[in-house]
Amino acid sequence: MALEKVTGDIKRMYEQIKIRPISNVENLLPWNTFLEMGLIVAHRDLDKILSEKKWAIVSGRGPSGPLHLGHLLVFKLVAWFQRVFNVHAFIPLSDDEKFVFGKIGSLNDAANWALENARWIAALGFDPKRTHIYVSSKHSWVYRYALTVSRHLTLSSVKGALGVDDSKNIGIPFYAAVQIVHILQPTFDFGLRTLVPIALDQDVFMRLTRDVAEKLKIPKPASVYVKFLPGLQNVPMSSSVPETAIYVTDNEKVIYSKIMRAHSGGGISTADHRKSGGNPDRCVIYEWLKAFYFRSKEHAERYAEACRTGQIVCGYDCKPLVYDLIVDFLHKLKNKADKIDLDSFLWNP
Amino acid sequence: MALEKVTGDIKRMYEQIKIRPISNVENLLPWNTFLEMGLIVAHRDLDKILSEKKWAIVSGRGPSGPLHLGHLLVFKLVAWFQRVFNVHAFIPLSDDEKFVFGKIGSLNDAANWALENARWIAALGFDPKRTHIYVSSKHSWVYRYALTVSRHLTLSSVKGALGVDDSKNIGIPFYAAVQIVHILQPTFDFGLRTLVPIALDQDVFMRLTRDVAEKLKIPKPASVYVKFLPGLQNVPMSSSVPETAIYVTDNEKVIYSKIMRAHSGGGISTADHRKSGGNPDRCVIYEWLKAFYFRSKEHAERYAEACRTGQIVCGYDCKPLVYDLIVDFLHKLKNKADKIDLDSFLWNP
Repeated sequence: MALEKVTGDIKRMYEQIKIRPISNVENLLPWNTFLEMGLIVAHRDLDKILSEKKWAIVSGRGPSGPLHLGHLLVFKLVAWFQRVFNVHAFIPLSDDEKFVFGKIGSLNDAANWALENARWIAALGFDPKRTHIYVSSKHSWVYRYALTVSRHLTLSSVKGALGVDDSKNIGIPFYAAVQIVHILQPTFDFGLRTLVPIALDQDVFMRLTRDVAEKLKIPKPASVYVKFLPGLQNVPMSSSVPETAIYVTDNEKVIYSKIMRAHSGGGISTADHRKSGGNPDRCVIYEWLKAFYFRSKEHAERYAEACRTGQIVCGYDCKPLVYDLIVDFLHKLKNKADKIDLDSFLWNP
Repeated sequence: MALEKVTGDIKRMYEQIKIRPISNVENLLPWNTFLEMGLIVAHRDLDKILSEKKWAIVSGRGPSGPLHLGHLLVFKLVAWFQRVFNVHAFIPLSDDEKFVFGKIGSLNDAANWALENARWIAALGFDPKRTHIYVSSKHSWVYRYALTVSRHLTLSSVKGALGVDDSKNIGIPFYAAVQIVHILQPTFDFGLRTLVPIALDQDVFMRLTRDVAEKLKIPKPASVYVKFLPGLQNVPMSSSVPETAIYVTDNEKVIYSKIMRAHSGGGISTADHRKSGGNPDRCVIYEWLKAFYFRSKEHAERYAEACRTGQIVCGYDCKPLVYDLIVDFLHKLKNKADKIDLDSFLWNP
């Protein structure tokens, strides 16, 4: 899949497109488990943005269904940045994106999912005073800024970036301008450079955005490259393959079943595993434990060693542990989400 | 130029694309000088829309400079339709169009022109209670409806319709959806079929709009095809060639000079003209007299005969007459425009 391919290409990316390993700037960030567990792999201009007094973080979501744990992890990182650096966070919910790509039947359906998603996102620890969640198509400035941006993007550059041809609808290339607007809006409105957490395979979007910023003579956005939580079946999490992800709407029975059937690095049988050990380096469950459990590299390494030596077994130890962690995490988050005063986070037109 | 080419193609258009000669439905319209002078040449579904109890008329304008007399003539026709059929008129001022096509430097400049243009348009006799003038990019529903429409338009169909290639910016194909929204908005919001006065060479837009309406299962717009006032130099009026048009902002000296230098059907000298007569069928001034002076075919024919027989001469008779008519028309219109309560016509977000 794209993600793995790109991860393989990371050295080339470091050389060609000014992306830098996160290790170069680790000392600029306070200790955190995202770095400790290798969930942030690279950056562009993070050092530059951290040297500025005020900046903003932007991270969006296309609302076409319930959030899964991969989404929550990214927004947890955004909330961490907000907390640690005391910055404003802008969270566009791009109903327009999901609509033009045909992932949702109507903008109203998308708006309903947007509000549902927003509740869970807000519950991750965002500060209502400095968080601005909004539904993209409901703000006339989105269209106006997108017009401004569109003048600087040719059809050929956007078709190349998105990999689309002329059989696609005209909303798709224009959405490129809208996404760029989401990233640049705090710069347009408040002169704040923005930081965007993104996956490496989406960097082409950051490059388009930076090109536009240069043409408009405004500060270019910075980015941190996030390693996505792998899907339970060892393919990327996908809404069209529900077994790959755990959704915030899944009940305990569904979560149990998904985890128990997940791809792991265990032996072909329990007896074999006890004898020969497992392979945590090829284990989805181990990756999920990195995201939700381990608090240090040493902790993770001790655990990996117990796997390699057959002291712990997927079905008896690791999967029940992940199950407990996730059920507990979602249970607590749901309690917070139910109590959220959503209006205090929403940027209403 | 495109217009003449298409006029030559009109028979083909009648056969291929369901445009009908206006003569077929003349009896459905009360007597009016637009028809009498041949300024409306064809229609599509005019009979259908007139058979409905309620409908609306839509006619827009891209605000990138002052209006010229050609614009005023079209809006006079729109005001006539409103008065005679007691219908609501929707007048989008497409700042977005002028911006994506690079005809104006900023949306704010376009908005300023929009308000200036709106004042003159309103003064043409529109009813404030049933007239809705609006600046396109300022309404979030424009973007939302354009998203809905965009799903039904492929890049290839719009590139073909507009005649643009991939070197153009991504705002241009998306604007096709916006223009369709302007036409369909009264149908979306109030279920009213719309009538659009348009030039024959822009019919491709009506066909795109009707295709989208069919896909959305809403009533298709009707159209009347307007013969544009020819430019003074016998090329179409154009903002980039100011001598071709008379602008509402031209002073009397400028108007005089433009008319005196206009292309006419006169002889090569006054003496020659007196002797051999002129050719009103190839005379721009005669076309302008049709638009602003003659009140019947007989009136126009008597006048043409006086030209053919050399009884009247361009520089002594026709041009001074047109000058007086236009200065008087603009003078009266300016008085009205100055007193217009613009807010009562504007549809503000």
